[in-house]
Amino acid sequence: MRTIAVQTASASYPVFVGSGLLKTVPEKLRKQFGKERQRVFVLTSPEIWSLWGETLAAGFDEKPSVLFLPPGETYKRMAQIERLATEMVDAGADRSSLLIAFGGGIIGDMGGFLAAIYMRGIPYVQIPTTLLAQVDSSVGGKTGSNLATGKNLIGSFHHPQAVFADVSTLKTLPARELRAGLFESVKAGIIRDAALFRYLEKQSDLVLSGDEIALQKVIAASVAMKAEVVGIDERESGLRMILNFGHTVGHAIEAATGYKKLLHGEAVGWGMLAALELSRRRGVIAEKEAARIEAVIRAYGPLPPFRAKVDALMDAAGRDKKNKAGVRRFILTEGVGQSIVVEDVTDAELESIIAWTLAEAKR
Amino acid sequence: MRTIAVQTASASYPVFVGSGLLKTVPEKLRKQFGKERQRVFVLTSPEIWSLWGETLAAGFDEKPSVLFLPPGETYKRMAQIERLATEMVDAGADRSSLLIAFGGGIIGDMGGFLAAIYMRGIPYVQIPTTLLAQVDSSVGGKTGSNLATGKNLIGSFHHPQAVFADVSTLKTLPARELRAGLFESVKAGIIRDAALFRYLEKQSDLVLSGDEIALQKVIAASVAMKAEVVGIDERESGLRMILNFGHTVGHAIEAATGYKKLLHGEAVGWGMLAALELSRRRGVIAEKEAARIEAVIRAYGPLPPFRAKVDALMDAAGRDKKNKAGVRRFILTEGVGQSIVVEDVTDAELESIIAWTLAEAKR
Repeated sequence: MRTIAVQTASASYPVFVGSGLLKTVPEKLRKQFGKERQRVFVLTSPEIWSLWGETLAAGFDEKPSVLFLPPGETYKRMAQIERLATEMVDAGADRSSLLIAFGGGIIGDMGGFLAAIYMRGIPYVQIPTTLLAQVDSSVGGKTGSNLATGKNLIGSFHHPQAVFADVSTLKTLPARELRAGLFESVKAGIIRDAALFRYLEKQSDLVLSGDEIALQKVIAASVAMKAEVVGIDERESGLRMILNFGHTVGHAIEAATGYKKLLHGEAVGWGMLAALELSRRRGVIAEKEAARIEAVIRAYGPLPPFRAKVDALMDAAGRDKKNKAGVRRFILTEGVGQSIVVEDVTDAELESIIAWTLAEAKR
Repeated sequence: MRTIAVQTASASYPVFVGSGLLKTVPEKLRKQFGKERQRVFVLTSPEIWSLWGETLAAGFDEKPSVLFLPPGETYKRMAQIERLATEMVDAGADRSSLLIAFGGGIIGDMGGFLAAIYMRGIPYVQIPTTLLAQVDSSVGGKTGSNLATGKNLIGSFHHPQAVFADVSTLKTLPARELRAGLFESVKAGIIRDAALFRYLEKQSDLVLSGDEIALQKVIAASVAMKAEVVGIDERESGLRMILNFGHTVGHAIEAATGYKKLLHGEAVGWGMLAALELSRRRGVIAEKEAARIEAVIRAYGPLPPFRAKVDALMDAAGRDKKNKAGVRRFILTEGVGQSIVVEDVTDAELESIIAWTLAEAKR
């Protein structure tokens, strides 16, 4: 097991990465929260609970109360937050209760948000069960819900008390989701961790085969990179923006394809190819480095083809909520482990790399 | 004009109290936020906007976008937060936008909550237009929305950037609301500010007549008391609990009468009589002091009569969300300006003072 400490201005908590961690959760929570009697609530999906619920629940003296959220973005909405909060009230949850978010990224985002606003905030713990959630969304304190007009437009910064990334739960994850989640680790390597990049470059077969030791290494390194960045810039006023590498175009692709065609990681994969192409065109990266980066992104593919209109992507990119007061920030790479934030990407440049990306994605 | 500084662990901001402040808002905001271009959104009620909107909007270079929330607890719900957030997205609000909550307590609570969770938090300003909101709810950072099962069960701690309590806006406030709001100032005097209590005791006629100078004095003192308490204990883990004097029974009365019969301040008035009676029975207060306190509470009445069942009030008091891990905290008074928190109030004691209160309220 590896333990990574997240330390930000407003919170500090451990991220545990290892195999067979689920069984250790109750004991660790008892240690962390002392003997104070706390009611425990678990937010999970029916599928995860049927696969792993018994393993998690076994060690609790008092069985946790279970709340369910069906899978899919359709349920990542305020009406569900209201329903879940009402169920918690009815079950007697108070300010000393603890919420465990046990599932993928949507469960983590919604569980964190529910904990953030239930009685103005209760503590919570993340147990991510998808690779994407383990390497990315469970760490950093971003929580939220969608609006009809866009993803994650409502939310809070609310850090968990602990994160348990149990590599064993990935055994039941569909292969496509494992592959897609790895793009966030590829991103971690590209923007800041050259050693992680080299490992992903050399051991792609082992990693993609789902080897637990290899995955533990990749997850721990990805989390450590994110923890460091978030520790320096909790609220995304500076450095944290580099985590959006591949996300400006990635988010636009997701929006323009109705969040149905591609998984988030796959859209980020395409978005990283776009950001790399723009880095090449601007001459901020040497071709040799660019070729290495492109080869690794493609090695974790193949990225699924998709079709969309340039205009639709431009509209979606313009509405990217990361843009403050009208400035379009864009993350470029100068080489493996190196990223920069630029603010002067023109509409013409953006349109041109979007057209390039669409041409690549049609093949 | 009086300026009170609120300084907590997580925020510091001014509360301006005075006459004719609305006109000064745009200039003060320009000073506070510098020249950075910020879109301004105003959440208000149709009535407040028709009475005071022009006065507020006059000084803005770019007219603010106005969002409306109809009056009443019915609209203090998550569905309205979702609608308002969607309207903000459609109108182009981003993370650099500023929200002004311009109205009574519900507008303040909902506006603060909307600002807390819109794109994970944007800055906001409170312009309370009821006495209750000016002396109490606009200061301290508590924001929230109701659930069907209870009030303020969903929310955030999110401090405003500034509060403008314009006494002039109270001219259009119904007399009953003025009277009801003053109970929170009476509370402020009882629990911590003996000088404020004496002023309210001696000048009750002047204060109740709506004299602007007298109200300014009362509002400023009430805000200063709350600011001090919140500065010491932002998250209600200790001292802040004294602000709940009169609120355990007060909230129960509101719940048991369906939030229709009494205004919040009136319910708190009854709740303070109940807390005073319990203080007498426990012998923690000298009778002379108790008589003074009772006289002042009654001077700001008459409190409207109501009927309810003891059981209904007991149920409602038991569900009071202020109780952590099953402990029922209760605030008593030891004399003018002095309050204590106790945790050993038995069901029998509570039932007995509730029965006493109901008998008083029937007369």
